[in-house]
Amino acid sequence: MVHFIDGEDNVKFKQHVFQTLENDPLFARQPGEDIPMDKKRELNFLRMKQLFRYNFLTKEEMMADPRKAVILDDCLGMYDWALVAKFFLNLGMFGSTIASSGSSRHNKYVKDTEDMTTFGCFALTELSHGSNTRAMRTTATYDPSTQEFVINSPDFEAAKFWVGNLGKTATHAVVFAQLYTPDQVCHGLHSFVVPVRDPKTLLALPGVLVGDMGKKLGQNGLDNGFVMFHGVRISRENLLNKTGDVTPDGRYLTPYKDPNKRFGASLGALSGGRVYICRMALVNLKLALTVAVRFSASRRQFGPKDTEEIPVLEYQLQQWRLIPYLAAVYALDHFTKTTFMNLIEFQVGQMMRDNSDRQMGKEIHAIGCSSKPLGSWTAQRGIQECREACGGHGYLAMNRLGDLRDDNDPNCTYEGDNNVLLQQTSNYLLSLFYAKLHGESKVVVSKLFIPGSPSEHPELAPYQWLVCFLLEESQKRLEQQKALGKDDFEARNDSQVYYCRSLALIYIEHTCLQRFFELTTDPKTPAGLRSVLRRLCALYGLWSLNNHMATLYQGTGFLHLIPLCHQLKDDAVALVDVFAPTDFILNSPAGNADGQLYKNMWSAVMQGTQVLERPSWWKEFCSDKPVVGSLRSRL
Amino acid sequence: MVHFIDGEDNVKFKQHVFQTLENDPLFARQPGEDIPMDKKRELNFLRMKQLFRYNFLTKEEMMADPRKAVILDDCLGMYDWALVAKFFLNLGMFGSTIASSGSSRHNKYVKDTEDMTTFGCFALTELSHGSNTRAMRTTATYDPSTQEFVINSPDFEAAKFWVGNLGKTATHAVVFAQLYTPDQVCHGLHSFVVPVRDPKTLLALPGVLVGDMGKKLGQNGLDNGFVMFHGVRISRENLLNKTGDVTPDGRYLTPYKDPNKRFGASLGALSGGRVYICRMALVNLKLALTVAVRFSASRRQFGPKDTEEIPVLEYQLQQWRLIPYLAAVYALDHFTKTTFMNLIEFQVGQMMRDNSDRQMGKEIHAIGCSSKPLGSWTAQRGIQECREACGGHGYLAMNRLGDLRDDNDPNCTYEGDNNVLLQQTSNYLLSLFYAKLHGESKVVVSKLFIPGSPSEHPELAPYQWLVCFLLEESQKRLEQQKALGKDDFEARNDSQVYYCRSLALIYIEHTCLQRFFELTTDPKTPAGLRSVLRRLCALYGLWSLNNHMATLYQGTGFLHLIPLCHQLKDDAVALVDVFAPTDFILNSPAGNADGQLYKNMWSAVMQGTQVLERPSWWKEFCSDKPVVGSLRSRL
Repeated sequence: MVHFIDGEDNVKFKQHVFQTLENDPLFARQPGEDIPMDKKRELNFLRMKQLFRYNFLTKEEMMADPRKAVILDDCLGMYDWALVAKFFLNLGMFGSTIASSGSSRHNKYVKDTEDMTTFGCFALTELSHGSNTRAMRTTATYDPSTQEFVINSPDFEAAKFWVGNLGKTATHAVVFAQLYTPDQVCHGLHSFVVPVRDPKTLLALPGVLVGDMGKKLGQNGLDNGFVMFHGVRISRENLLNKTGDVTPDGRYLTPYKDPNKRFGASLGALSGGRVYICRMALVNLKLALTVAVRFSASRRQFGPKDTEEIPVLEYQLQQWRLIPYLAAVYALDHFTKTTFMNLIEFQVGQMMRDNSDRQMGKEIHAIGCSSKPLGSWTAQRGIQECREACGGHGYLAMNRLGDLRDDNDPNCTYEGDNNVLLQQTSNYLLSLFYAKLHGESKVVVSKLFIPGSPSEHPELAPYQWLVCFLLEESQKRLEQQKALGKDDFEARNDSQVYYCRSLALIYIEHTCLQRFFELTTDPKTPAGLRSVLRRLCALYGLWSLNNHMATLYQGTGFLHLIPLCHQLKDDAVALVDVFAPTDFILNSPAGNADGQLYKNMWSAVMQGTQVLERPSWWKEFCSDKPVVGSLRSRL
Repeated sequence: MVHFIDGEDNVKFKQHVFQTLENDPLFARQPGEDIPMDKKRELNFLRMKQLFRYNFLTKEEMMADPRKAVILDDCLGMYDWALVAKFFLNLGMFGSTIASSGSSRHNKYVKDTEDMTTFGCFALTELSHGSNTRAMRTTATYDPSTQEFVINSPDFEAAKFWVGNLGKTATHAVVFAQLYTPDQVCHGLHSFVVPVRDPKTLLALPGVLVGDMGKKLGQNGLDNGFVMFHGVRISRENLLNKTGDVTPDGRYLTPYKDPNKRFGASLGALSGGRVYICRMALVNLKLALTVAVRFSASRRQFGPKDTEEIPVLEYQLQQWRLIPYLAAVYALDHFTKTTFMNLIEFQVGQMMRDNSDRQMGKEIHAIGCSSKPLGSWTAQRGIQECREACGGHGYLAMNRLGDLRDDNDPNCTYEGDNNVLLQQTSNYLLSLFYAKLHGESKVVVSKLFIPGSPSEHPELAPYQWLVCFLLEESQKRLEQQKALGKDDFEARNDSQVYYCRSLALIYIEHTCLQRFFELTTDPKTPAGLRSVLRRLCALYGLWSLNNHMATLYQGTGFLHLIPLCHQLKDDAVALVDVFAPTDFILNSPAGNADGQLYKNMWSAVMQGTQVLERPSWWKEFCSDKPVVGSLRSRL
């Protein structure tokens, strides 16, 4: 099974990475150790620096076999996702954003991060805006007299927030800001390369208020940070100019006529990341299940006789709690792998044919957006079940289930809140359905998209039926809402619970299930494995379907829930005030009674320890630069 | 509403406690602060010591109005449950176990804990046994030559584990051990008062290997510990002798003929605690909702126009995520309060009438056992929803949702694993049903127990139907399993998923809902509040019901799930091995590939830092003893 799932080469590569880390004392750790946040950040930085030296995968090797990159990330993520994030945000996110949004004049920035001369990060989210990216308030105003952009944060609510690597280490940031030309016209969100710290000293540059956001629920090896700009001047050329540029004398030029399209293109780089996050979540679930299943096979409690106890895995209830997640792991493993292949095919196709397959791009976007909720929620629930299934021993830090849960949790939120992302998927599905209803023959439904077309797999009929049913119901609901006089925005919002959200979830579950089913019937799948894979597939399908019984049943209760929630909504704050303690006891800036959310949080950030100081280990960045590949050994 | 829910007096008392803590610098803390585990334990100890000085409730006040104790625990728990636990395990758990299981000769032990001369803990669970209490392996062998018991731990798997207060501070433990008389006869589990540390130095006594278990997922202010006994001798009189005693010459005496009954009586003290845990979970959910609802009312994102954004609470989806939990808070608040009153009534009744109402005792046990799963799971899911509903800001440690989740999590596990406890409730319900089927007229179903009797509240009909339906189905299932030749143990295990577990959950939800419904129709409920309470009640009922749609629908999928899980069970470990990394990467003693669960965990505990040392702050225990009530002020 191992060789079938991963391939012999990859199994060897995995073992090589695992052994290398195990043999390096820098990577040693003790189960359940209690490490202060600052020390976690230092250790993570040092380990990341060591990864430069190991250089497990060269660029050439990655190009030759992109799946190797997935394997490497799996391995490092199994060790610690904060390590992968720190490594990736600099080399991948910073670099790839520049590659996709900039031009050759920006190559030097990418090159400098490759040997840690500089260190990069990606700054989009602001304190008061995340999902609504267009509402960002950081500005970049062009000054033709010096041929510079002036970067400015109007107030702390517009501080860039949550920027990974920015807390302690980044010297350069890709900053998203509203571009203003000298004629006071705003041309929308653009990205700029902005130096934030001196690479020689790690001290903040003039006009830059940059610091560490403080403790998170997990992944504390990663230094998330904030930054405010006070009239920071950068060269005109630091604008990443693929989708729009400013001439030396201050005129705005863009190849896009529709500003929405320009904006979409510049955020396009985010799409692939979501499947990757689904994979991250899957890896977390794999680890949690490893612990819980092995625990359940060893732990004995009660038995048919007083003298003899049986492993808790023998109990039907314990099986029912854990085994469906085991099936989900196999389903999601195959799903993420095949989707990565789709992505690569698509990107290659794009390079070759230049935009010829827009429909496939949209479908991949729809799959990507819903894959993250599917993976991250399945993992979050699964890890919690594993924690509980291990009883008290699952509550001991040493057994790692807490770290896994905490490290997995942000997968539900970053790169788009799960619930918001599901709307992207349902919007896409509904647009297809609408086009079909109105006989727009030019819509080509590719083979990735099954519902509505006659099925090759009758086994999947209930799922297909559900997708179709929910498409119709969602469409009806939308039209009803519009008939009530609601505008598009309201009508869409008021159709999420009933049923757009379920539609998107069931669509992606169906996609995942279908691919897994194909694997079990694929002649290339070894005959000896087919029976267990078929069982896993059936279990995953039934279990997922079972979670939608409420939708299938369509009880009237569901319909009454929504108006009740709505009626109580205006009382919600008052109803909370009834049982809320004083702010001192509550001890949560976001929950203070005054509702001054951002002010309270900003002040709590500022009151933290060593928020604005450079880290005590700053010389580890500024000297002793890693020689890339110096510790690399052959397999 | 505040005055209606809590009463004017209690509101004042609450404010007094809150203000007292806020005015004391010892209780100051910073949102999201990063505190090492040892420091957390020290701070928690010092704060607990201060509680002796404040003495918010004297014994007399508590007797006069037992509800005050609930209010006080709510207040302190809102601050930090580890503080309440440390305080309660010494004064309450240690003391009340001695009171309920011992006799007047043990009064001195209770008295000494009341001014912190000594410090107590409760040692039942062992490393390899939790739920199956009867399988405990610690022994207490009577030696008539010295009139002593010799306490012994056969090996580390029998080490007492998870004992709150034992890690750093306890000087005395109530230890559960198998009692052996000199004739080698084992008389089953009994409890003993065993000194473990010298109260003058906090150093371990000879023969006692006692230490700190290390970091947990939450509640790290509480020092959970382990202890192994190597021939530790204690006086014969240290046996808590209510249910059984040993004469000086070594004969065993007990008023119980059936050892099961004796055992049940000695564990009876645990029952009330479960409703209390339900209340703890509720308090956590209150805090999380306070944060999430206020956040949602302040946070704006998107809007009908590009220029104007609306609070996220205005979105139907956000309402649907949070408001049902708000309804659950009100339902559970009323439920826990009324159940506490039932408990008090019952205890008073017991004292007066001596066991006249056994049926009510059983019912309270059934309600208690299922109240903990209901409360702890609702809270755990609710807090996670709150975390996600606050997006990234919910993932910042400063906003406390992580601590709330981590501190609530053990409520699912201690005092009986949730799934195991639900079996107690379903066993009780099935025994009632069986008696009814067989026309045993002596079974009096009290008014606490509704299903099967004609309802006073037709509004609750679907719930009543569900309870009855599940009773029948569970009974059928049990009989089917027995007809297949399975013994009682197997038949019961194989009926949990289908449907004993659901039966117990739905029964307790129904009880909770029914009480809340009665509140909304009670003439004493102010007319002005009835409408909002009725809405909360309807929402809670519909939402809970909605979660059981799969059961109602009774899809065939459900039936197929169970055998699939069973078929995959034997492959589970191998299927996990396929994706498991090396032990070094996995970094979880319970999940090591060798399955040597206890050996690996024990070794990880021993390798921790300062495991066996007394704490650096030991003098804080040994000197400067608190003068009880010295800081007490009137309201």
